Amino acid sequence: MDATYDGDVVRAGRSAREQFHDARGYGRPVDGDVHLAPVEAAHLLFRGDLDAVVDARPGTAGERLGFRAFLTSAAVSEVAFFLYKDLRDRGFYLSPARDGWVDEVSGDFVVYPRGRGPWNGAVAYRVRAVGERAAVTADDLATLAAVDADEGGAGVLAVVDEESEPTYFAVESPTMTGSTHHDIPEIAGDLAADRVLVWDPPAPLHERAFYGQRLDEGDAVQLSLVEAAYLAGQGTLSIAGDGGRNPAEIIGERGREVEGERFDRRLRIYAALRAAGIVPKTGYKFGADFRTYADVESVADLGHSERLVRVLPSGHTFTPRDLALDVRLAHGVRKEMVFALAHDEGVEWLSVGRLTP
Amino acid sequence: MDATYDGDVVRAGRSAREQFHDARGYGRPVDGDVHLAPVEAAHLLFRGDLDAVVDARPGTAGERLGFRAFLTSAAVSEVAFFLYKDLRDRGFYLSPARDGWVDEVSGDFVVYPRGRGPWNGAVAYRVRAVGERAAVTADDLATLAAVDADEGGAGVLAVVDEESEPTYFAVESPTMTGSTHHDIPEIAGDLAADRVLVWDPPAPLHERAFYGQRLDEGDAVQLSLVEAAYLAGQGTLSIAGDGGRNPAEIIGERGREVEGERFDRRLRIYAALRAAGIVPKTGYKFGADFRTYADVESVADLGHSERLVRVLPSGHTFTPRDLALDVRLAHGVRKEMVFALAHDEGVEWLSVGRLTP
Repeated sequence: MDATYDGDVVRAGRSAREQFHDARGYGRPVDGDVHLAPVEAAHLLFRGDLDAVVDARPGTAGERLGFRAFLTSAAVSEVAFFLYKDLRDRGFYLSPARDGWVDEVSGDFVVYPRGRGPWNGAVAYRVRAVGERAAVTADDLATLAAVDADEGGAGVLAVVDEESEPTYFAVESPTMTGSTHHDIPEIAGDLAADRVLVWDPPAPLHERAFYGQRLDEGDAVQLSLVEAAYLAGQGTLSIAGDGGRNPAEIIGERGREVEGERFDRRLRIYAALRAAGIVPKTGYKFGADFRTYADVESVADLGHSERLVRVLPSGHTFTPRDLALDVRLAHGVRKEMVFALAHDEGVEWLSVGRLTP
Repeated sequence: MDATYDGDVVRAGRSAREQFHDARGYGRPVDGDVHLAPVEAAHLLFRGDLDAVVDARPGTAGERLGFRAFLTSAAVSEVAFFLYKDLRDRGFYLSPARDGWVDEVSGDFVVYPRGRGPWNGAVAYRVRAVGERAAVTADDLATLAAVDADEGGAGVLAVVDEESEPTYFAVESPTMTGSTHHDIPEIAGDLAADRVLVWDPPAPLHERAFYGQRLDEGDAVQLSLVEAAYLAGQGTLSIAGDGGRNPAEIIGERGREVEGERFDRRLRIYAALRAAGIVPKTGYKFGADFRTYADVESVADLGHSERLVRVLPSGHTFTPRDLALDVRLAHGVRKEMVFALAHDEGVEWLSVGRLTP
């Protein structure tokens, strides 16, 4: 069976509509015929269900294109083809997210729940497909995270690697709340090179609210600069020999000396987490900015941290490889990977997890 | 007991020498007395073995400094102190790597095997200590990797995080050799957007030498651009419609279009690995450039990949956090993390692994 490529869609007749659309969810029926997206036509060529696509674009000689010629033509993106094939191989029906083809044009494909198709209305995933070397902006992820609430179906980023194998990431907007709220009496500390030492700490500081670390059991508590800057900003911490200056400013200056503008960004995210009742501690061992504990009643009774948080500037662009690294590591230690974007107007949280469709 | 800080070392008398050096490996004996490095004196103050250090620097008023004042003075680096304390807590004796104190001045501390000390000559580790936010150059790692061969003892990078907890990385120069050498007959392929499709592949191409992936079983093989560029450079692959141009050039151009200068760097490392009999495949899922297989006899009989390789430009600077991320992920999937530095004069390989002293 042949079909005709007009530069936009691949058109085929009634019997193709019955075989491909009605029975197997390809394309969109139009006046009793069927319109196939190029990627769908490529898949039908690959399977041998179509014999050729006739190139009927204006100015062409009506060449008959087989799978090989059609796939390597500009009509079809290889990334889209390998993704389409993978989802079909996994038993899904899916539609290219073209205007008029799907309920909401978002991402590249609308994937239906297994056993369903374009006839039912239910949506499992809305998938954006990119190659291993593509740039993925924070806005791209935010758009995927918004899918669930706005459109139904989960927002998914699919990355097709150099070996044409896709991996899938579910992108969501996590609700960041915890229950850690403890009163800390006022304290004083010494500013050392890049930490603050509190020599006579009240028990709630570390043992309840989980600020800092004990130098030794029952001994001084040393605070990281970001912890100290937050406590100083809350009016809880003063610094010995501050010369009458605001201790939050003194610590902020030191923080910017050792870490540049990242310090202020991390402090903002730190403060947003504390305000939400969540305890951030260094995520260094996991290659992240923070690991977080939502519900700390007592440090003696501490569970595992639940999340890893990476702090990023507004407008950050991800590479899929960096995403894969963060998400895989978090998965390996059974934590949720959360990206915190420091926008001028507030913090945006995005969680990214592995998905096997 | 008091001791005297002269701006360089902390001096104490015969009885201090007996107690601290002879019995417990602190400092260096000088004329029957002992000289302590400031970090050693800080540890003795912390333990209460020294009561105070008298500040005898020219122009000072001979103030008696306790642990608190001495630790937060400029005499002692907190990073060095927390590291020193951690290694002492683990049961090691160690010496600051000061000129005249140790056999070779390399890194910050010479750590002796457990149960040994500065009297024996044997060395377990030569440790460089940095804070979580320090910059670590490729040269720093290379220096640590060279330690084993040149000086005895393993080269170790110790990173002290915001919470003052050290983690340890063993740095080595791995021997990169494998046994994968298969003859491939000449082949032709089609260049698509960012891969090359070989429609009639000879069996050794994928099934023995593990180039590319099958589109489907028994079907076309698709090569990544870096695989294709390498095979074209070897004279094995030609490109359909090359217009008489060198196929390696055509693919290289495409590679630089999609990946910039990274493409040539990755190709160099790819070629070096293949020349060593090692098969590189994409490391995307692990957030690396390549995963590698040293001994591929047949793809049907493939084991797990042994290494993850990250390709870096000559002169790359690491952040400890990125190192921690890569090394932890590699450890979690039981692979060796290898950094490949593309110098003008050749490739430098550095492996970094977790170490528990």
